[in-house]
Amino acid sequence: MPWNQIDSVKNPKVKNVKRLMKRKFREREQQFVIEGWHLLKEAEAHDVKITDVFIEETKDIPEDVDVSDLPVSLVTGQVMQEMSRTETPQGVAAICRMPEETVLDVHTGHTYLFIDGVQDPGNLGTMIRTADAAGVTAVILGEGTVDGYNDKVVRATQGSLFHLPVLKGELGEWIQACRTHKIPIFGTSVNEGTSHTAIGAQKGFALLVGNEGSGVQHSLLDETDQNIYVPIYGNAESLNVSVAAGILLYHLKQPY
Amino acid sequence: MPWNQIDSVKNPKVKNVKRLMKRKFREREQQFVIEGWHLLKEAEAHDVKITDVFIEETKDIPEDVDVSDLPVSLVTGQVMQEMSRTETPQGVAAICRMPEETVLDVHTGHTYLFIDGVQDPGNLGTMIRTADAAGVTAVILGEGTVDGYNDKVVRATQGSLFHLPVLKGELGEWIQACRTHKIPIFGTSVNEGTSHTAIGAQKGFALLVGNEGSGVQHSLLDETDQNIYVPIYGNAESLNVSVAAGILLYHLKQPY
Repeated sequence: MPWNQIDSVKNPKVKNVKRLMKRKFREREQQFVIEGWHLLKEAEAHDVKITDVFIEETKDIPEDVDVSDLPVSLVTGQVMQEMSRTETPQGVAAICRMPEETVLDVHTGHTYLFIDGVQDPGNLGTMIRTADAAGVTAVILGEGTVDGYNDKVVRATQGSLFHLPVLKGELGEWIQACRTHKIPIFGTSVNEGTSHTAIGAQKGFALLVGNEGSGVQHSLLDETDQNIYVPIYGNAESLNVSVAAGILLYHLKQPY
Repeated sequence: MPWNQIDSVKNPKVKNVKRLMKRKFREREQQFVIEGWHLLKEAEAHDVKITDVFIEETKDIPEDVDVSDLPVSLVTGQVMQEMSRTETPQGVAAICRMPEETVLDVHTGHTYLFIDGVQDPGNLGTMIRTADAAGVTAVILGEGTVDGYNDKVVRATQGSLFHLPVLKGELGEWIQACRTHKIPIFGTSVNEGTSHTAIGAQKGFALLVGNEGSGVQHSLLDETDQNIYVPIYGNAESLNVSVAAGILLYHLKQPY
């Protein structure tokens, strides 16, 4: 299809990209923005609906990226700068449609990551990436958690956002569903519970991690089968939540 | 001591803080900047020499912070904004002196983290925090690694920078020193080697992790005892390096 040309930062498409930096608009429009060739490739490979692609006119398109079927606009460097949220823009951004909301069934023997109130986008994105790597079936974002379509989250997932379901949900209900399906539920707490080193690998499990400062809500910790912590051998007060999640997901995972 | 008052962003002390954002000046002056009450407390608690403290005049000093023996300047909000590198300044910054360079001996049975060319300050800071938590004896930053006194690194360490030696060093020499002391050296590689799940806990060890894009240099991987990887069960291409380091440090660590 013929390519559009955008020279003005006042172009409605540019304004739309900027609006989509806000969660409210993303949720209303059911759209979000990605940046960089790697994410564009990942979105295409995983059948994400891409409604607009913006390429900086002076940039070369990598050989392994096929934009022939995509609605491309060529933009000036100034326009790209205006749309970009990264310090050194790669010269490509795109608007993607969020997947349709699906009802996900819980399956015995599967693995789930429940996230309660994590605030830092880098932490959430990294956890989605780690969950993907560890073969987690789905990531559930409880109330108070940063939006999964925040630009920094999307970037930190490195494409994993497109590899597994990442859903908003009521964590109490998910815990009940796991219980019904005999999936052991492990909460995490810095101070209470059992060292993870005392727990063996599990066929399937749910891991519940929480806010950077206050951890998992007590009302949720009361509903788990067991609460665990990663022991601190040195003088750090705690681990970064995305590192703790990585240690626990891989520790509880049965290698195959 | 009586408190100074700084109203102008052109004050030499303010200019000094801004200069210290550059690695070159930090290394020449042997000073670095910290921000936030938590880091100030950690620096005091670990006998870091603090040469200047800047407190925003409208901010309350937390009850658990004692600044009575420190050279405090009260600054305006505008001055604090000028000095700060965070989006929401807590209202306190300080200049600290780097510790004297020490020669560190390698000890049999101890644990070391070797970092080859990690570029992202958040990743390095998080790894220093995890190394502290896991009881690592020292972290060695090889050539090409981001400066350990970069403001984002310092922030991500959450104070762990003051808890264990974090030294610049020639990784090839450190590997040799470990070999001499019969400390097993594990390199990491996404594609080559043995799954970490096949390796048991070690009394002491050295773990070698590398650059976010290119990994550990081949010339160093050739010098290790064994190269290991964290298996990917899903569709992620790789793990974040600080998550991988956390998984491996805690997997190789003998619980006690």
